[in-house]
Amino acid sequence: MTQKRQLLPIMSWGRDYDRDKLVADLLAAVIVMVMLIPQSLAYALVAGLPPEMGLYASILPLMVYTFFGSSRVLSVGPVAVLSLMTAAALGGLQLASNAEYIVAALTLAFLSGAFLLILGLLRMGFLANFMSHPVVTGFITASAVIIILSQVQHLLGISSHGYTLPELLPSLLVSVTQINTATALLSLGTLLWLFWSRNGMSVLLQRMGMSSTRALLLARTSPVLAVIVTTVVVWYFDLQAAGIAIVGDIPSGLPSPTMPSFSLELWQGLAGSAALLAIIGFVESVSVAQGLAAKQRERIDPDQELIGLGASNIAAGFSGGFPVAGGFSRSVVNYDAGAATPAAGFFAAILIAVVTLLFVPLLAWLPKATLAATIIVAVWSLVDFAILRQAWRYSMADFLGVSTTIVLTLLAGVEVGVAAGILVSLVVHLYKTSRPHVAIVGELPGTEHFRNVNRHQVQTYDTILSIRIDESLYFANTRYLEDIIYGMVAERPNLRHVILMCTAVNEIDMSAMDSILTISTRLDEIGIKLHLSEVKGPVMDGLLRTDFLSKLSGHVFLSQHQAVEALK
Amino acid sequence: MTQKRQLLPIMSWGRDYDRDKLVADLLAAVIVMVMLIPQSLAYALVAGLPPEMGLYASILPLMVYTFFGSSRVLSVGPVAVLSLMTAAALGGLQLASNAEYIVAALTLAFLSGAFLLILGLLRMGFLANFMSHPVVTGFITASAVIIILSQVQHLLGISSHGYTLPELLPSLLVSVTQINTATALLSLGTLLWLFWSRNGMSVLLQRMGMSSTRALLLARTSPVLAVIVTTVVVWYFDLQAAGIAIVGDIPSGLPSPTMPSFSLELWQGLAGSAALLAIIGFVESVSVAQGLAAKQRERIDPDQELIGLGASNIAAGFSGGFPVAGGFSRSVVNYDAGAATPAAGFFAAILIAVVTLLFVPLLAWLPKATLAATIIVAVWSLVDFAILRQAWRYSMADFLGVSTTIVLTLLAGVEVGVAAGILVSLVVHLYKTSRPHVAIVGELPGTEHFRNVNRHQVQTYDTILSIRIDESLYFANTRYLEDIIYGMVAERPNLRHVILMCTAVNEIDMSAMDSILTISTRLDEIGIKLHLSEVKGPVMDGLLRTDFLSKLSGHVFLSQHQAVEALK
Repeated sequence: MTQKRQLLPIMSWGRDYDRDKLVADLLAAVIVMVMLIPQSLAYALVAGLPPEMGLYASILPLMVYTFFGSSRVLSVGPVAVLSLMTAAALGGLQLASNAEYIVAALTLAFLSGAFLLILGLLRMGFLANFMSHPVVTGFITASAVIIILSQVQHLLGISSHGYTLPELLPSLLVSVTQINTATALLSLGTLLWLFWSRNGMSVLLQRMGMSSTRALLLARTSPVLAVIVTTVVVWYFDLQAAGIAIVGDIPSGLPSPTMPSFSLELWQGLAGSAALLAIIGFVESVSVAQGLAAKQRERIDPDQELIGLGASNIAAGFSGGFPVAGGFSRSVVNYDAGAATPAAGFFAAILIAVVTLLFVPLLAWLPKATLAATIIVAVWSLVDFAILRQAWRYSMADFLGVSTTIVLTLLAGVEVGVAAGILVSLVVHLYKTSRPHVAIVGELPGTEHFRNVNRHQVQTYDTILSIRIDESLYFANTRYLEDIIYGMVAERPNLRHVILMCTAVNEIDMSAMDSILTISTRLDEIGIKLHLSEVKGPVMDGLLRTDFLSKLSGHVFLSQHQAVEALK
Repeated sequence: MTQKRQLLPIMSWGRDYDRDKLVADLLAAVIVMVMLIPQSLAYALVAGLPPEMGLYASILPLMVYTFFGSSRVLSVGPVAVLSLMTAAALGGLQLASNAEYIVAALTLAFLSGAFLLILGLLRMGFLANFMSHPVVTGFITASAVIIILSQVQHLLGISSHGYTLPELLPSLLVSVTQINTATALLSLGTLLWLFWSRNGMSVLLQRMGMSSTRALLLARTSPVLAVIVTTVVVWYFDLQAAGIAIVGDIPSGLPSPTMPSFSLELWQGLAGSAALLAIIGFVESVSVAQGLAAKQRERIDPDQELIGLGASNIAAGFSGGFPVAGGFSRSVVNYDAGAATPAAGFFAAILIAVVTLLFVPLLAWLPKATLAATIIVAVWSLVDFAILRQAWRYSMADFLGVSTTIVLTLLAGVEVGVAAGILVSLVVHLYKTSRPHVAIVGELPGTEHFRNVNRHQVQTYDTILSIRIDESLYFANTRYLEDIIYGMVAERPNLRHVILMCTAVNEIDMSAMDSILTISTRLDEIGIKLHLSEVKGPVMDGLLRTDFLSKLSGHVFLSQHQAVEALK
């Protein structure tokens, strides 16, 4: 079923909502809530914000998305990469106080949401296409490495700073002597539990007779168990005295309405970061949503997703949150848990609100090391350096894009890394299309097929040069085209006709049209006519709207065979 | 004859230099010199620099180019657009004194030369391809308008300032009451003479029996006559007293060696402008050189041109000049006058040096209005607003590029205009290729040809969907591809096979390969196999270096016909 575009997708699925769907949605909501709480607290830590902001970012933004988003199962909230980018963006501002830092986070969410909303209303979702897969994978890999390294301090009870290797590594090394043993042991235990429950637990549960889906879902709740157990242990044995850092008092109650700043100076400082955050969050969300929708022969509307995410982020800015997006793991859990409509997300948000209201004060004794371990296990699977080897084997262009992204993200930070990756991909792509594959062709004897003279025994003539161009002609390759044709002509003194075979030319833009006419004029001056053959319908339509045909020294032939027959 | 790449092209043409070529070169040199002197003085005025700097920029840079450039006839020196860009770049710096302004001009030439040289050594000439014809034409048109408006003050003896319409027009309007009658009359006379000699004189001379080439060349010398006559008139009748502004004392003698500044602050202020100047100068020079070389079945080497122009501009920085490029009109005159080798340029430079040495003091009485008139007539032919109409009729993409360039150059200045034009062209190109033409195809009964189902009566099957993609597949269109295929699949409940027909797919990058595999996996989950057909050789080579074929749910068929036969 293809969904029609409308500002409030709830209008389409809300109409036939029934009891069965309600039950499915409520069940999914409970499972997602259990998974989201530790993750939300942890990502707030990554972003350098108080843990409750992670919860707040999972309430109103998630509710708002269910009204405006086009995906049935996307679960919106804090995600790893955006949390890191938030920390890096705010860290660059050199803010005076914690309060200013929090306002800057609200403002970043607001600006990023406004940017998404504007793109959505202008239907500019295609901008996300400028991020290639290798760049996205490379960026996420490098970001995950940075996130893991930035959490090592909490695992060991030491302190480090920065969001690049040159900052993080030295600051970890100088404090390596101050490792707190109790913290390190607690971390080790938590990490072992989490890694085991991720890989071994569902196998065990299945051996015990549980279905694989239920076993996987149960394994996903292991972080909550870690949170509860370590909190109780630290509280009961008063391990704070042994040097284990805890989260401390968290204000209970729902978020009170907040305001992003409207200071022009702050906006200028955050605008670039907000735009990058928006694009990255959008790319991640759309990839997840598109994949899950296809599983059910459904589609999502990228422009509607922009509006949904935009509204969510604006909501985050006004309800004590920070930048949010559709997360991969939580959306998959939502899907696997059987969410039937976006209402599942709405119910999950209500449940999180209830937990925030009732149980949050109990989290004061939650060790930071537990959250750090949760984060590390969550982002561990994002690290994929194999992409480097794959890209290397496949093409130099893709390798350049991915290696630039990874190296610069690690060395110079997330914003430089992703911006450079996008730029390098674009320049490399343009470079490739600016030097298209061009073959001199001849006729296979006895057929009407024309093939590369270098690969086949074909019939050619001294007076006719047939050139097949394997690329659309546009401004980036017109100069190359002129150059290569003049070069071929200069080597052939008996030449009378040049025929451009356009089977693979999907477009001729105005620059290319001008170039062809320039070539035609130049060749005409030395007694050579320029012809085209096999021009595609839409390309020909464009040329016919101009005086191209009357200016071309030669003719346009329907087929290469006809051209050679007429001119030989 | 194809020239081999070498650092000093003089090594190839110098070897068989003979008496005939010497005579031809000397004759061309005299004609070019006569044309260059007024033009050089005038462009210095456009750049806001003392007139002698225009002459200096025509001596050493021209000599240096003859050693390093690959074109036989390109004539290097001050050109209109670069002079305007120089003025705009330096005007933005708010320099304290004239001396600082001059040093900044030297530095701009030096930086722009260094940038060109580095691009040349790295063989990055392809960067110039990013400027489409409509953007170049639009930019030159808008620049010419700005140049003409900036000279009106000299024609009327009033004063104006700025390099955008919002600056120039008001400043001209407020001083319109202070027009100097003597200056205006002198300007009117000069303009009439110059316009008539450009259009009417050669016709008259040909009627009198002169050959058309000689008549055109003679007409080109009319500005020198204007310079001599108006200078003598102003000197003899002492018209300075009547309010006619004159050039004033010009230092005689050759340029003494100068030094560009090596201040980091100045470099930072000029770096962006220098890069833009370099690209624009390079694009102009290569277009001219390529066109003239093709007339004689020769080629130029764009990377060698970068080196030649780079060396010229560095020379300008050390010899009292300002940014230079290969000019269109002077190169055409050089070619028409019969220049046989680059030595013609060298001789022209020597002649200009001699004139500078002997006659320049006489130019003190040269009216600025004469120079302004010379400039206006020279750039008048560059104005081509018809490009707007042509682009509008041909394609929205080209129209967007050219209109953005023209409007922003006029309103916000040359640098903003050209940068925005390049950016808009790139984004529009990527947008177009991000939404490629995709056709559902079926077999023409009785043939093995597959055509669009919307245009032909063709055979299709409920269980097979054949899709032809008319574009290379790369990161910018993979998301669109996924979206459109999921959409088509969602509408066809009986579907079992999807075949992508790749006749027009010249490339599949890693993002596209990943996307095809993602689509394959998703479709497989709902019982549909994905196949490819007619994959081009180089594309297949790339796919074979990966495990693509083993991951694809379907097969790769040699032809679409075979695919449908096997699957129906």
